[in-house]
Amino acid sequence: MSLKAYRLLQQVEVVIGYKTYIELISELLSADQEIIKSKMTEEVERANQVIDLARKGKSVAIISSGDPGVYGMAGLILEVREKRRLVELEVEIVPGITAASAAAASLGAPLMHDYAVISLSDLLTPWEVIEGRLKKAARADFVAALYNPKSSRRTEQIEIARDIFLEYRDSTTPVGIVRSAKRGSEEVTITSLADMLEEKIDMLTTVIIGNSESYQSSNFLITPRGYQL
Amino acid sequence: MSLKAYRLLQQVEVVIGYKTYIELISELLSADQEIIKSKMTEEVERANQVIDLARKGKSVAIISSGDPGVYGMAGLILEVREKRRLVELEVEIVPGITAASAAAASLGAPLMHDYAVISLSDLLTPWEVIEGRLKKAARADFVAALYNPKSSRRTEQIEIARDIFLEYRDSTTPVGIVRSAKRGSEEVTITSLADMLEEKIDMLTTVIIGNSESYQSSNFLITPRGYQL
Repeated sequence: MSLKAYRLLQQVEVVIGYKTYIELISELLSADQEIIKSKMTEEVERANQVIDLARKGKSVAIISSGDPGVYGMAGLILEVREKRRLVELEVEIVPGITAASAAAASLGAPLMHDYAVISLSDLLTPWEVIEGRLKKAARADFVAALYNPKSSRRTEQIEIARDIFLEYRDSTTPVGIVRSAKRGSEEVTITSLADMLEEKIDMLTTVIIGNSESYQSSNFLITPRGYQL
Repeated sequence: MSLKAYRLLQQVEVVIGYKTYIELISELLSADQEIIKSKMTEEVERANQVIDLARKGKSVAIISSGDPGVYGMAGLILEVREKRRLVELEVEIVPGITAASAAAASLGAPLMHDYAVISLSDLLTPWEVIEGRLKKAARADFVAALYNPKSSRRTEQIEIARDIFLEYRDSTTPVGIVRSAKRGSEEVTITSLADMLEEKIDMLTTVIIGNSESYQSSNFLITPRGYQL
Protein backbone atom coordinates (compact mmCIF):
# COMPACT_ATOMS: atom_id res chain seq x y z
CA MET A 1 0.00 0.00 0.00
CA SER A 2 1.21 3.49 -0.77
CA LEU A 3 1.83 6.08 1.92
CA LYS A 4 -0.86 8.20 0.27
CA ALA A 5 -3.50 5.46 0.42
CA TYR A 6 -2.52 4.74 4.04
CA ARG A 7 -3.06 8.37 5.05
CA LEU A 8 -6.28 8.85 3.09
CA LEU A 9 -7.87 5.70 4.49
CA GLN A 10 -7.48 7.14 7.97
CA GLN A 11 -8.93 10.52 7.01
CA VAL A 12 -12.16 9.62 5.21
CA GLU A 13 -15.54 9.28 6.91
CA VAL A 14 -16.61 6.14 5.04
CA VAL A 15 -14.61 3.16 3.73
CA ILE A 16 -16.34 0.74 1.39
CA GLY A 17 -15.06 -2.36 -0.37
CA TYR A 18 -15.38 -6.06 -1.04
CA LYS A 19 -15.39 -7.67 2.40
CA THR A 20 -12.17 -9.67 1.96
CA TYR A 21 -10.29 -6.47 1.17
CA ILE A 22 -11.84 -4.58 4.09
CA GLU A 23 -10.64 -7.38 6.38
CA LEU A 24 -7.09 -7.04 5.02
CA ILE A 25 -6.95 -3.40 6.16
CA SER A 26 -9.10 -3.62 9.29
CA GLU A 27 -6.18 -2.63 11.55
CA LEU A 28 -5.95 0.75 9.84
CA LEU A 29 -9.60 1.69 10.36
CA SER A 30 -11.08 3.35 13.42
CA ALA A 31 -14.37 3.13 15.29
CA ASP A 32 -15.25 6.68 14.16
CA GLN A 33 -15.44 5.55 10.54
CA GLU A 34 -18.40 3.98 8.78
CA ILE A 35 -17.19 0.71 7.23
CA ILE A 36 -19.27 -0.94 4.49
CA LYS A 37 -18.41 -4.48 3.41
CA SER A 38 -19.87 -5.45 0.04
CA LYS A 39 -20.29 -8.74 -1.71
CA MET A 40 -18.42 -9.85 -4.83
CA THR A 41 -20.33 -9.26 -8.12
CA GLU A 42 -22.08 -6.21 -6.67
CA GLU A 43 -19.64 -3.77 -8.22
CA VAL A 44 -22.18 -1.55 -9.97
CA GLU A 45 -24.31 -1.22 -6.83
CA ARG A 46 -21.18 -0.46 -4.83
CA ALA A 47 -20.17 2.31 -7.25
CA ASN A 48 -23.68 3.83 -7.05
CA GLN A 49 -23.60 3.61 -3.26
CA VAL A 50 -20.27 5.48 -3.12
CA ILE A 51 -21.64 8.19 -5.37
CA ASP A 52 -24.83 8.49 -3.28
CA LEU A 53 -22.73 8.92 -0.13
CA ALA A 54 -20.44 11.46 -1.79
CA ARG A 55 -23.46 13.45 -2.98
CA LYS A 56 -24.60 13.69 0.65
CA GLY A 57 -21.29 15.38 1.38
CA LYS A 58 -19.45 12.42 2.88
CA SER A 59 -15.79 11.75 2.13
CA VAL A 60 -15.74 8.15 0.94
CA ALA A 61 -12.89 5.80 0.04
CA ILE A 62 -13.70 2.79 -2.10
CA ILE A 63 -10.92 0.24 -2.07
CA SER A 64 -9.63 -2.32 -4.55
CA SER A 65 -6.80 -4.78 -4.11
CA GLY A 66 -3.64 -3.95 -6.08
CA ASP A 67 -4.16 -0.89 -8.27
CA PRO A 68 -7.78 0.35 -8.44
CA GLY A 69 -7.01 1.51 -11.99
CA VAL A 70 -6.24 -2.02 -13.27
CA TYR A 71 -9.44 -4.12 -13.47
CA GLY A 72 -10.44 -2.37 -10.22
CA MET A 73 -13.14 0.04 -9.09
CA ALA A 74 -11.66 3.30 -10.47
CA GLY A 75 -13.18 2.99 -13.92
CA LEU A 76 -16.60 1.97 -12.69
CA ILE A 77 -16.82 4.96 -10.35
CA LEU A 78 -15.99 7.28 -13.26
CA GLU A 79 -18.41 5.44 -15.59
CA VAL A 80 -21.30 5.71 -13.11
CA ARG A 81 -20.47 9.36 -12.41
CA GLU A 82 -20.61 10.02 -16.16
CA LYS A 83 -23.85 8.08 -16.64
CA ARG A 84 -25.55 9.87 -13.76
CA ARG A 85 -24.28 13.21 -15.09
CA LEU A 86 -22.57 14.05 -11.85
CA VAL A 87 -19.31 15.16 -13.37
CA GLU A 88 -19.00 17.95 -10.78
CA LEU A 89 -18.50 15.26 -8.09
CA GLU A 90 -14.85 15.24 -7.04
CA VAL A 91 -13.05 11.92 -7.57
CA GLU A 92 -9.40 11.17 -6.89
CA ILE A 93 -7.79 7.93 -8.02
CA VAL A 94 -4.93 6.81 -5.77
CA PRO A 95 -2.72 4.41 -7.71
CA GLY A 96 -1.50 1.17 -6.17
CA ILE A 97 0.79 -1.73 -6.87
CA THR A 98 -0.98 -3.96 -9.36
CA ALA A 99 -0.72 -7.76 -9.11
CA ALA A 100 1.69 -7.93 -12.06
CA SER A 101 4.22 -5.77 -10.17
CA ALA A 102 3.63 -7.49 -6.82
CA ALA A 103 3.93 -10.99 -8.30
CA ALA A 104 6.97 -9.96 -10.38
CA ALA A 105 8.80 -8.74 -7.27
CA SER A 106 8.26 -12.09 -5.55
CA LEU A 107 9.47 -13.95 -8.65
CA GLY A 108 12.55 -11.77 -9.26
CA ALA A 109 12.40 -9.48 -12.28
CA PRO A 110 10.29 -11.00 -15.06
CA LEU A 111 8.82 -7.64 -16.21
CA MET A 112 12.09 -6.00 -17.17
CA HIS A 113 11.02 -5.87 -20.79
CA ASP A 114 7.80 -5.03 -22.67
CA TYR A 115 4.79 -6.87 -21.27
CA ALA A 116 1.07 -7.35 -21.79
CA VAL A 117 -1.51 -7.54 -19.02
CA ILE A 118 -4.47 -9.74 -19.94
CA SER A 119 -7.46 -10.86 -17.88
CA LEU A 120 -8.68 -14.35 -18.78
CA SER A 121 -12.15 -13.67 -17.36
CA ASP A 122 -14.77 -13.72 -20.14
CA LEU A 123 -17.52 -12.51 -17.81
CA LEU A 124 -17.41 -8.98 -19.26
CA THR A 125 -15.30 -9.53 -22.41
CA PRO A 126 -15.99 -11.86 -25.35
CA TRP A 127 -13.57 -14.80 -25.35
CA GLU A 128 -12.61 -14.14 -29.01
CA VAL A 129 -11.21 -10.74 -28.01
CA ILE A 130 -9.16 -12.29 -25.20
CA GLU A 131 -7.92 -15.07 -27.45
CA GLY A 132 -6.87 -12.55 -30.12
CA ARG A 133 -4.88 -10.63 -27.53
CA LEU A 134 -3.20 -13.79 -26.23
CA LYS A 135 -2.13 -14.72 -29.77
CA LYS A 136 -0.75 -11.29 -30.60
CA ALA A 137 1.02 -10.99 -27.24
CA ALA A 138 2.58 -14.43 -27.76
CA ARG A 139 3.68 -13.64 -31.33
CA ALA A 140 5.15 -10.25 -30.39
CA ASP A 141 7.28 -11.89 -27.65
CA PHE A 142 5.70 -9.83 -24.87
CA VAL A 143 6.12 -11.09 -21.34
CA ALA A 144 2.51 -11.83 -20.36
CA ALA A 145 0.86 -11.23 -16.98
CA LEU A 146 -2.41 -13.15 -16.81
CA TYR A 147 -5.04 -11.97 -14.32
CA ASN A 148 -8.11 -13.98 -13.24
CA PRO A 149 -6.57 -17.08 -14.82
CA LYS A 150 -9.03 -19.64 -13.48
CA SER A 151 -12.05 -19.91 -11.21
CA SER A 152 -13.95 -22.90 -9.90
CA ARG A 153 -16.40 -22.64 -12.81
CA ARG A 154 -14.02 -21.28 -15.44
CA THR A 155 -11.19 -23.74 -15.96
CA GLU A 156 -10.52 -23.98 -19.71
CA GLN A 157 -9.16 -20.49 -20.40
CA ILE A 158 -5.77 -21.02 -18.79
CA GLU A 159 -5.35 -24.25 -20.78
CA ILE A 160 -6.12 -22.47 -24.06
CA ALA A 161 -3.80 -19.61 -23.11
CA ARG A 162 -0.98 -22.05 -22.36
CA ASP A 163 -1.53 -23.80 -25.72
CA ILE A 164 -1.42 -20.46 -27.59
CA PHE A 165 1.91 -19.55 -25.99
CA LEU A 166 3.27 -23.03 -26.78
CA GLU A 167 2.69 -22.30 -30.47
CA TYR A 168 5.11 -19.37 -30.35
CA ARG A 169 7.48 -20.14 -27.46
CA ASP A 170 9.62 -23.03 -26.34
CA SER A 171 8.04 -25.42 -23.85
CA THR A 172 10.92 -24.66 -21.46
CA THR A 173 9.94 -20.93 -21.29
CA PRO A 174 9.84 -20.07 -17.59
CA VAL A 175 6.48 -19.30 -16.02
CA GLY A 176 5.95 -17.74 -12.62
CA ILE A 177 2.85 -18.49 -10.60
CA VAL A 178 2.13 -16.33 -7.58
CA ARG A 179 -0.86 -16.79 -5.32
CA SER A 180 -1.90 -14.00 -2.91
CA ALA A 181 1.08 -11.87 -3.97
CA LYS A 182 2.55 -9.90 -1.03
CA ARG A 183 -0.10 -11.07 1.39
CA GLY A 184 0.72 -13.21 4.41
CA SER A 185 -0.33 -16.40 2.64
CA GLU A 186 1.76 -15.85 -0.51
CA GLU A 187 2.79 -18.91 -2.58
CA VAL A 188 5.46 -18.53 -5.29
CA THR A 189 6.33 -21.15 -7.92
CA ILE A 190 8.62 -21.03 -10.95
CA THR A 191 7.78 -23.63 -13.57
CA SER A 192 7.65 -23.82 -17.38
CA LEU A 193 5.06 -23.62 -20.15
CA ALA A 194 5.24 -27.41 -20.37
CA ASP A 195 4.49 -27.98 -16.69
CA MET A 196 2.48 -24.94 -15.57
CA LEU A 197 -0.92 -26.63 -15.62
CA GLU A 198 0.22 -29.03 -12.89
CA GLU A 199 0.36 -26.12 -10.42
CA LYS A 200 -2.50 -24.78 -8.34
CA ILE A 201 -4.03 -21.82 -10.21
CA ASP A 202 -7.14 -19.95 -9.06
CA MET A 203 -8.68 -16.46 -8.86
CA LEU A 204 -6.07 -15.34 -6.31
CA THR A 205 -3.26 -16.29 -8.70
CA THR A 206 -1.27 -14.18 -11.17
CA VAL A 207 0.56 -16.08 -13.91
CA ILE A 208 3.60 -14.49 -15.58
CA ILE A 209 4.87 -16.11 -18.77
CA GLY A 210 8.44 -15.12 -19.69
CA ASN A 211 9.53 -13.93 -23.12
CA SER A 212 11.99 -15.82 -25.34
CA GLU A 213 14.96 -14.51 -23.32
CA SER A 214 13.63 -15.01 -19.79
CA TYR A 215 15.52 -17.48 -17.61
CA GLN A 216 15.64 -18.88 -14.11
CA SER A 217 18.60 -18.14 -11.81
CA SER A 218 18.42 -20.01 -8.50
CA ASN A 219 15.04 -19.02 -7.08
CA PHE A 220 14.52 -16.01 -9.36
CA LEU A 221 12.86 -15.49 -12.74
CA ILE A 222 14.72 -12.89 -14.82
CA THR A 223 13.92 -11.21 -18.12
CA PRO A 224 17.10 -9.50 -19.36
CA ARG A 225 16.81 -5.84 -20.29
CA GLY A 226 19.64 -6.06 -22.83
CA TYR A 227 22.58 -4.60 -20.90
CA GLN A 228 26.13 -5.75 -21.69
CA LEU A 229 27.40 -7.06 -18.38
CA MET B 1 5.98 5.03 -2.51
CA SER B 2 4.91 1.96 -0.58
CA LEU B 3 4.94 1.80 3.21
CA LYS B 4 7.42 -1.05 2.90
CA ALA B 5 9.85 0.95 0.75
CA TYR B 6 9.49 3.91 3.12
CA ARG B 7 10.44 1.78 6.13
CA LEU B 8 13.29 -0.07 4.43
CA LEU B 9 14.89 3.13 3.13
CA GLN B 10 15.20 4.34 6.71
CA GLN B 11 16.70 1.05 7.94
CA VAL B 12 19.49 0.35 5.45
CA GLU B 13 23.09 1.49 5.89
CA VAL B 14 23.61 2.59 2.26
CA VAL B 15 21.21 4.11 -0.29
CA ILE B 16 22.32 4.30 -3.90
CA GLY B 17 20.54 5.59 -6.98
CA TYR B 18 20.49 7.93 -9.93
CA LYS B 19 21.01 11.39 -8.44
CA THR B 20 17.64 12.83 -9.50
CA TYR B 21 15.86 10.01 -7.67
CA ILE B 22 18.03 10.39 -4.55
CA GLU B 23 17.06 14.06 -4.47
CA LEU B 24 13.37 13.15 -4.63
CA ILE B 25 13.68 11.16 -1.38
CA SER B 26 16.32 13.24 0.40
CA GLU B 27 13.94 14.14 3.23
CA LEU B 28 13.62 10.49 4.21
CA LEU B 29 17.35 9.88 4.55
CA SER B 30 19.47 10.50 7.64
CA ALA B 31 23.03 11.67 8.29
CA ASP B 32 23.93 8.19 9.57
CA GLN B 33 23.39 6.67 6.15
CA GLU B 34 25.89 6.54 3.31
CA ILE B 35 24.21 8.06 0.25
CA ILE B 36 25.65 7.41 -3.21
CA LYS B 37 24.37 9.45 -6.16
CA SER B 38 25.14 7.90 -9.54
CA LYS B 39 25.01 9.22 -13.05
CA MET B 40 22.56 8.15 -15.73
CA THR B 41 23.86 5.43 -18.11
CA GLU B 42 26.06 3.94 -15.39
CA GLU B 43 23.55 1.25 -14.52
CA VAL B 44 25.88 -1.74 -14.82
CA GLU B 45 28.55 -0.08 -12.65
CA ARG B 46 25.88 0.85 -10.13
CA ALA B 47 24.67 -2.75 -9.95
CA ASN B 48 28.23 -4.01 -9.42
CA GLN B 49 28.82 -1.38 -6.76
CA VAL B 50 25.70 -2.47 -4.85
CA ILE B 51 26.82 -6.07 -4.98
CA ASP B 52 30.33 -5.16 -3.82
CA LEU B 53 28.88 -3.29 -0.84
CA ALA B 54 26.51 -6.14 -0.01
CA ARG B 55 29.40 -8.63 -0.12
CA LYS B 56 31.16 -6.53 2.51
CA GLY B 57 28.15 -7.11 4.73
CA LYS B 58 26.41 -3.75 4.23
CA SER B 59 22.66 -3.50 3.91
CA VAL B 60 22.15 -1.54 0.69
CA ALA B 61 19.03 -0.17 -0.98
CA ILE B 62 19.25 0.65 -4.67
CA ILE B 63 16.35 2.78 -5.81
CA SER B 64 14.48 3.21 -9.07
CA SER B 65 11.61 5.53 -9.83
CA GLY B 66 8.23 3.83 -10.20
CA ASP B 67 8.54 0.05 -9.92
CA PRO B 68 12.14 -1.23 -9.89
CA GLY B 69 10.85 -4.37 -11.62
CA VAL B 70 9.62 -2.48 -14.72
CA TYR B 71 12.58 -1.23 -16.81
CA GLY B 72 14.24 -0.51 -13.43
CA MET B 73 17.28 -1.78 -11.53
CA ALA B 74 15.79 -5.04 -10.16
CA GLY B 75 16.65 -7.15 -13.18
CA LEU B 76 20.16 -5.80 -13.55
CA ILE B 77 20.98 -6.57 -9.92
CA LEU B 78 19.81 -10.15 -10.42
CA GLU B 79 21.65 -10.44 -13.76
CA VAL B 80 24.94 -9.21 -12.26
CA ARG B 81 24.49 -11.46 -9.23
CA GLU B 82 24.02 -14.42 -11.59
CA LYS B 83 26.98 -13.47 -13.78
CA ARG B 84 29.29 -13.07 -10.79
CA ARG B 85 28.02 -16.38 -9.39
CA LEU B 86 26.97 -14.79 -6.13
CA VAL B 87 23.57 -16.41 -5.95
CA GLU B 88 23.91 -16.80 -2.17
CA LEU B 89 23.73 -13.00 -1.85
CA GLU B 90 20.34 -12.05 -0.43
CA VAL B 91 18.24 -9.77 -2.66
CA GLU B 92 14.73 -8.52 -1.99
CA ILE B 93 12.73 -6.70 -4.65
CA VAL B 94 10.25 -4.20 -3.21
CA PRO B 95 7.58 -3.50 -5.82
CA GLY B 96 6.44 0.03 -6.56
CA ILE B 97 3.86 1.94 -8.56
CA THR B 98 5.02 1.87 -12.16
CA ALA B 99 4.57 4.93 -14.39
CA ALA B 100 1.65 3.32 -16.25
CA SER B 101 -0.36 3.09 -13.01
CA ALA B 102 0.70 6.52 -11.75
CA ALA B 103 -0.08 8.22 -15.06
CA ALA B 104 -3.36 6.30 -15.38
CA ALA B 105 -4.52 7.52 -11.97
CA SER B 106 -3.92 11.12 -12.97
CA LEU B 107 -5.78 10.61 -16.25
CA GLY B 108 -8.78 8.78 -14.75
CA ALA B 109 -9.00 5.07 -15.52
CA PRO B 110 -7.53 4.26 -18.93
CA LEU B 111 -6.07 0.87 -17.86
CA MET B 112 -9.35 -0.77 -16.92
CA HIS B 113 -8.93 -3.31 -19.70
CA ASP B 114 -6.04 -5.36 -21.13
CA TYR B 115 -2.96 -3.27 -21.83
CA ALA B 116 0.55 -3.48 -23.18
CA VAL B 117 3.57 -1.70 -21.71
CA ILE B 118 6.17 -0.84 -24.36
CA SER B 119 9.39 1.16 -24.10
CA LEU B 120 10.21 3.13 -27.25
CA SER B 121 13.91 3.32 -26.39
CA ASP B 122 15.98 1.38 -28.93
CA LEU B 123 19.18 1.78 -26.92
CA LEU B 124 19.04 -1.82 -25.67
CA THR B 125 16.38 -3.32 -27.98
CA PRO B 126 16.37 -3.50 -31.80
CA TRP B 127 13.79 -1.13 -33.27
CA GLU B 128 12.25 -3.93 -35.39
CA VAL B 129 11.28 -5.77 -32.18
CA ILE B 130 9.68 -2.63 -30.74
CA GLU B 131 7.85 -1.89 -34.00
CA GLY B 132 6.52 -5.47 -34.14
CA ARG B 133 5.17 -5.12 -30.62
CA LEU B 134 3.53 -1.78 -31.41
CA LYS B 135 1.78 -3.29 -34.44
CA LYS B 136 0.50 -6.33 -32.58
CA ALA B 137 -0.61 -4.26 -29.59
CA ALA B 138 -2.46 -1.89 -31.93
CA ARG B 139 -4.12 -4.74 -33.85
CA ALA B 140 -5.18 -6.59 -30.69
CA ASP B 141 -6.87 -3.44 -29.36
CA PHE B 142 -4.69 -3.29 -26.27
CA VAL B 143 -4.57 -0.01 -24.39
CA ALA B 144 -0.89 0.94 -24.78
CA ALA B 145 1.36 2.57 -22.19
CA LEU B 146 4.47 3.92 -23.90
CA TYR B 147 7.58 4.46 -21.75
CA ASN B 148 10.65 6.50 -22.80
CA PRO B 149 8.65 7.92 -25.72
CA LYS B 150 11.13 10.56 -26.82
CA SER B 151 14.48 12.04 -25.86
CA SER B 152 16.37 15.05 -27.17
CA ARG B 153 18.28 12.79 -29.58
CA ARG B 154 15.57 10.20 -30.23
CA THR B 155 12.53 11.92 -31.70
CA GLU B 156 11.20 9.71 -34.52
CA GLN B 157 9.97 6.70 -32.53
CA ILE B 158 6.90 8.37 -31.07
CA GLU B 159 5.90 9.55 -34.55
CA ILE B 160 6.20 6.03 -35.98
CA ALA B 161 4.29 4.62 -32.99
CA ARG B 162 1.50 7.15 -33.52
CA ASP B 163 1.31 6.26 -37.24
CA ILE B 164 1.10 2.52 -36.43
CA PHE B 165 -1.83 3.09 -34.06
CA LEU B 166 -3.54 5.31 -36.65
CA GLU B 167 -3.58 2.31 -39.03
CA TYR B 168 -5.75 0.35 -36.60
CA ARG B 169 -7.61 2.96 -34.54
CA ASP B 170 -9.70 6.01 -35.21
CA SER B 171 -7.85 9.33 -35.20
CA THR B 172 -10.21 10.50 -32.41
CA THR B 173 -8.97 7.73 -30.07
CA PRO B 174 -8.16 9.48 -26.78
CA VAL B 175 -4.53 9.69 -25.73
CA GLY B 176 -3.29 10.68 -22.28
CA ILE B 177 0.06 12.35 -21.83
CA VAL B 178 1.46 12.63 -18.33
CA ARG B 179 4.77 14.25 -17.49
CA SER B 180 6.39 13.62 -14.08
CA ALA B 181 3.43 11.51 -12.95
CA LYS B 182 2.64 12.03 -9.25
CA ARG B 183 5.59 14.32 -8.68
CA GLY B 184 5.19 17.95 -7.70
CA SER B 185 5.68 19.17 -11.25
CA GLU B 186 3.09 16.82 -12.85
CA GLU B 187 1.52 17.86 -16.18
CA VAL B 188 -1.56 16.00 -17.47
CA THR B 189 -3.06 16.33 -20.95
CA ILE B 190 -5.84 14.43 -22.70
CA THR B 191 -5.65 14.64 -26.48
CA SER B 192 -6.21 12.30 -29.45
CA LEU B 193 -4.15 10.17 -31.83
CA ALA B 194 -4.62 12.92 -34.43
CA ASP B 195 -3.27 15.69 -32.20
CA MET B 196 -0.90 13.99 -29.77
CA LEU B 197 2.33 15.01 -31.50
CA GLU B 198 1.52 18.66 -30.85
CA GLU B 199 2.01 18.09 -27.11
CA LYS B 200 5.28 18.22 -25.20
CA ILE B 201 6.65 14.67 -24.94
CA ASP B 202 10.04 13.79 -23.43
CA MET B 203 11.82 11.19 -21.29
CA LEU B 204 9.79 12.16 -18.21
CA THR B 205 6.55 11.51 -20.09
CA THR B 206 4.30 8.44 -20.20
CA VAL B 207 1.90 8.22 -23.13
CA ILE B 208 -1.29 6.14 -22.78
CA ILE B 209 -3.22 5.37 -25.98
CA GLY B 210 -6.81 4.27 -25.37
CA ASN B 211 -8.42 1.19 -26.94
CA SER B 212 -11.35 1.35 -29.37
CA GLU B 213 -13.82 1.88 -26.48
CA SER B 214 -11.92 4.46 -24.44
CA TYR B 215 -13.56 7.86 -24.11
CA GLN B 216 -13.15 11.20 -22.40
CA SER B 217 -15.60 12.33 -19.70
CA SER B 218 -14.96 15.90 -18.50
CA ASN B 219 -11.31 15.85 -17.41
CA PHE B 220 -11.00 12.04 -17.23
CA LEU B 221 -9.94 9.35 -19.68
CA ILE B 222 -11.97 6.14 -19.20
CA THR B 223 -11.65 2.67 -20.69
CA PRO B 224 -14.88 0.79 -19.93
CA ARG B 225 -14.53 -2.61 -18.30
CA GLY B 226 -17.77 -3.89 -19.81
CA TYR B 227 -20.22 -3.56 -16.92
CA GLN B 228 -23.91 -2.95 -17.64
CA LEU B 229 -24.65 0.28 -15.80
